[in-house]
Amino acid sequence: MNYRAVVYYIGTILKVVACFLIVPFITSLCFREWDALLPFVYTALIFLGAGFAFAPFAPKKKKFGSKEGLVIVGLSWIVVSMIGAFPYFFSGVANYFDGLFETISGFTTTGATILEDIEIAPKGGLMWRSLTHWLGGMGILVFLLAVIPSSDGSTFQLMKFESPGPAVGKLVSKVRRSAAISYFIYLALTVIQIVFLLCGGVNLFESVTLTFSTAGTGGFAVLNSSAQSYSVYVKIVLIVFMLVFSINFNVYYLLVIGKFALALKNEEFLGYLLFVVLSIAAVTACVFNTFATFGEALLQASFAVASISSTTGFTITDMAQWSEGARAILALVAIVGTCAGSTGGGLKFSRVIVLIRTAGVSLMDMVRPNGVHIVKLDKKPFGRNETESVAGYFLLYCLVAGISVLLLCLFGNDMETSFFTMVTMFNNVGPCLSNGIGALGATASYATFNWMSKIVMMFDMLIGRLEIFPILLLFAPQSWSRRF
Amino acid sequence: MNYRAVVYYIGTILKVVACFLIVPFITSLCFREWDALLPFVYTALIFLGAGFAFAPFAPKKKKFGSKEGLVIVGLSWIVVSMIGAFPYFFSGVANYFDGLFETISGFTTTGATILEDIEIAPKGGLMWRSLTHWLGGMGILVFLLAVIPSSDGSTFQLMKFESPGPAVGKLVSKVRRSAAISYFIYLALTVIQIVFLLCGGVNLFESVTLTFSTAGTGGFAVLNSSAQSYSVYVKIVLIVFMLVFSINFNVYYLLVIGKFALALKNEEFLGYLLFVVLSIAAVTACVFNTFATFGEALLQASFAVASISSTTGFTITDMAQWSEGARAILALVAIVGTCAGSTGGGLKFSRVIVLIRTAGVSLMDMVRPNGVHIVKLDKKPFGRNETESVAGYFLLYCLVAGISVLLLCLFGNDMETSFFTMVTMFNNVGPCLSNGIGALGATASYATFNWMSKIVMMFDMLIGRLEIFPILLLFAPQSWSRRF
Repeated sequence: MNYRAVVYYIGTILKVVACFLIVPFITSLCFREWDALLPFVYTALIFLGAGFAFAPFAPKKKKFGSKEGLVIVGLSWIVVSMIGAFPYFFSGVANYFDGLFETISGFTTTGATILEDIEIAPKGGLMWRSLTHWLGGMGILVFLLAVIPSSDGSTFQLMKFESPGPAVGKLVSKVRRSAAISYFIYLALTVIQIVFLLCGGVNLFESVTLTFSTAGTGGFAVLNSSAQSYSVYVKIVLIVFMLVFSINFNVYYLLVIGKFALALKNEEFLGYLLFVVLSIAAVTACVFNTFATFGEALLQASFAVASISSTTGFTITDMAQWSEGARAILALVAIVGTCAGSTGGGLKFSRVIVLIRTAGVSLMDMVRPNGVHIVKLDKKPFGRNETESVAGYFLLYCLVAGISVLLLCLFGNDMETSFFTMVTMFNNVGPCLSNGIGALGATASYATFNWMSKIVMMFDMLIGRLEIFPILLLFAPQSWSRRF
Repeated sequence: MNYRAVVYYIGTILKVVACFLIVPFITSLCFREWDALLPFVYTALIFLGAGFAFAPFAPKKKKFGSKEGLVIVGLSWIVVSMIGAFPYFFSGVANYFDGLFETISGFTTTGATILEDIEIAPKGGLMWRSLTHWLGGMGILVFLLAVIPSSDGSTFQLMKFESPGPAVGKLVSKVRRSAAISYFIYLALTVIQIVFLLCGGVNLFESVTLTFSTAGTGGFAVLNSSAQSYSVYVKIVLIVFMLVFSINFNVYYLLVIGKFALALKNEEFLGYLLFVVLSIAAVTACVFNTFATFGEALLQASFAVASISSTTGFTITDMAQWSEGARAILALVAIVGTCAGSTGGGLKFSRVIVLIRTAGVSLMDMVRPNGVHIVKLDKKPFGRNETESVAGYFLLYCLVAGISVLLLCLFGNDMETSFFTMVTMFNNVGPCLSNGIGALGATASYATFNWMSKIVMMFDMLIGRLEIFPILLLFAPQSWSRRF
């Protein structure tokens, strides 16, 4: 275990995140929220102090292996969240524990809030909330890689373990260039969405915060009614961009460099679009009777599917009041989630494809035991390690999901609330679809849960965003032995 | 596709099942239920008539492959259930559709009943109900293999596909001898349990029916209160034998032939015992406050865990009233299920071991990408095909579970009822643990569900008992092409 490298990267990331506090600081300045300024200054000082304490100088040997990569990713997210919670605490918006919940919900792009009245919070704090979505969406370490010079290839581990999906391909051979291109596309799409929202008459503050929350597929809104009060135009812009950010960024890269044919042959991309369209059709059929016109039902279903499928979690109605069937479809949509290499959560569509093909292969193995049947994706065969890794991930996913529901039940929540809470937390979606005994509703706050349940939820959000391994490994004693 | 072989085996199995109708016929004779006699005669005639119509003569080529094996298993279970439903219909106990539900519930050893008052039904009918459990438990085709002479090894397919578990090993090299030994152990254990129950003062009729239901890990009782009114001694006998029948029969075979050391080294057997003990401890902790004494809580928890874990489904209290935590643990216990090669349902413990080790291997692959990590069971390495087959099975299991819950929700059941109904049907358990909006309770009848939900449930029971592939393949067009 190369402890020095671990400490160095965590320290550096703290210094980088400190710089981002300038954004909410300026927001508060613009809105003349004099009381809200100092919390950001204090927090920035803590970030910088901890950053310099962790990493006073670069280690002699920066090179590290997979294990260090996983530990850096897992630990840095926890440390950044722990410090990132201070603005809420210092400004009195929430106690430290709830602030930590809000920060983890932010960085993991879940968007579940413990604030009961969002509109009374200072604008700077709301900007920080949405900014955590934006940073967490593409990844804080990926940002780091895009800005620091890197001498060797071992930093690719960080990008691999922080980015969602079963097999993260570098866009180009250099890690730094890959990370920079990802962030450039991310930034460009963000700017385009802000412009679209401004054109729809949304003010600058709301445009920027809504866009940050959309880009990270987070879901923190700045109004208590989430996206309900916006015009149909704005709702459609949100539907489109929620889906845009849930597609593999490789597709955009291929489009940018002119390889249209290759982009349009991507099996995950095409399958995902089909899945979204079918889900919209199914939900529309379920909620058809609830709304006055077909157009309204279609808009509502499209928004709900785009919001849940992209794991963003904006709402324009209380979906928890919808029929069992509609909510069951939405739960399925949340679990399937987004494409690999996007900013969203869930199992990831390419994993679902590989899993279904693995099932198909095992069926074929049974029918024709002497034939050779291989799982393929994008016409390339998957190796044994890769299918085993996807299958192993799926099993861990089910285990974590099952244990989470079990713990939430044991901590006094009813079965339906526990199930929907797990689905929404673990897949980084946000709004709760439960209308069971402890009815929550899609726009409700999570403040009412007890602290034990909240710990389960924070764990689920982190383990969902980082795809289990980086967090799980922190609990393995072998991770901390020098020799292993 | 060797159609003649398919038709021949299905026809033969119908003739064999016809002979078993003598048991309920004699029961009705003994209880002087003159009205109940004719239904069994008619049903036997239908079985025989269909048997001879299907298989007027043996085909020239009896040899067949995996695909035919799967189709024979899937189809014969459906045909046997369809004819086995007639006694309920002819005797006026239920309409044909509900009778079919009861028969499928019987053969698949689920034990979910649509009878609202069991005690008014004729004793002969109740004997038939329990006998379907006993036949379905070890397998109707396995019985066939034990009695008919077989010229070649292809009949092993039938045993492999009908017996539960990922890798069914023949006990000895000859298929017929293997099947006969399995049924001999099964019969011996059945007789021992009957003797134990008779010693506890239970009358002969109840001893035999209860034992048939225990041996098949079914759960049909002959009293409306299931096993509640029996003495503590009888309850303990039931706990022990429910667990006895949920253990791999290979272990008993090894004990019989004197290989004690080998039997006691079986990882699945040891792991399953540990799992049951831990589950009993956890459930006891959850329900401790509900009962007057620790002894009562321990008895209740042990009975519930033994009943659900073995997928039998006898009840001695309404577990649906227990806390969310206790019911969530019981749902987990039901999903894990029994050992492979037992008469029970669920995922099977050896599959769970392999799945967890696959997850461990994928974690190790991530931490040390250059190491070689292989899944092992009982110290033997698993091949790629085997792990892929277990992973594929697990995925199909999750898919069927998800789609079932979705359909049950769409057909108007609430989320909690849908979830618990799927768990109990798909794992062939029986009593419903839901106390949601459409509260059922553990001793309630399934008569109140609508017909669409009942079709989903029948499908789940069959696909759960036959472990997905034989039923799934019936829907694949390739199965029916001659050339494939």
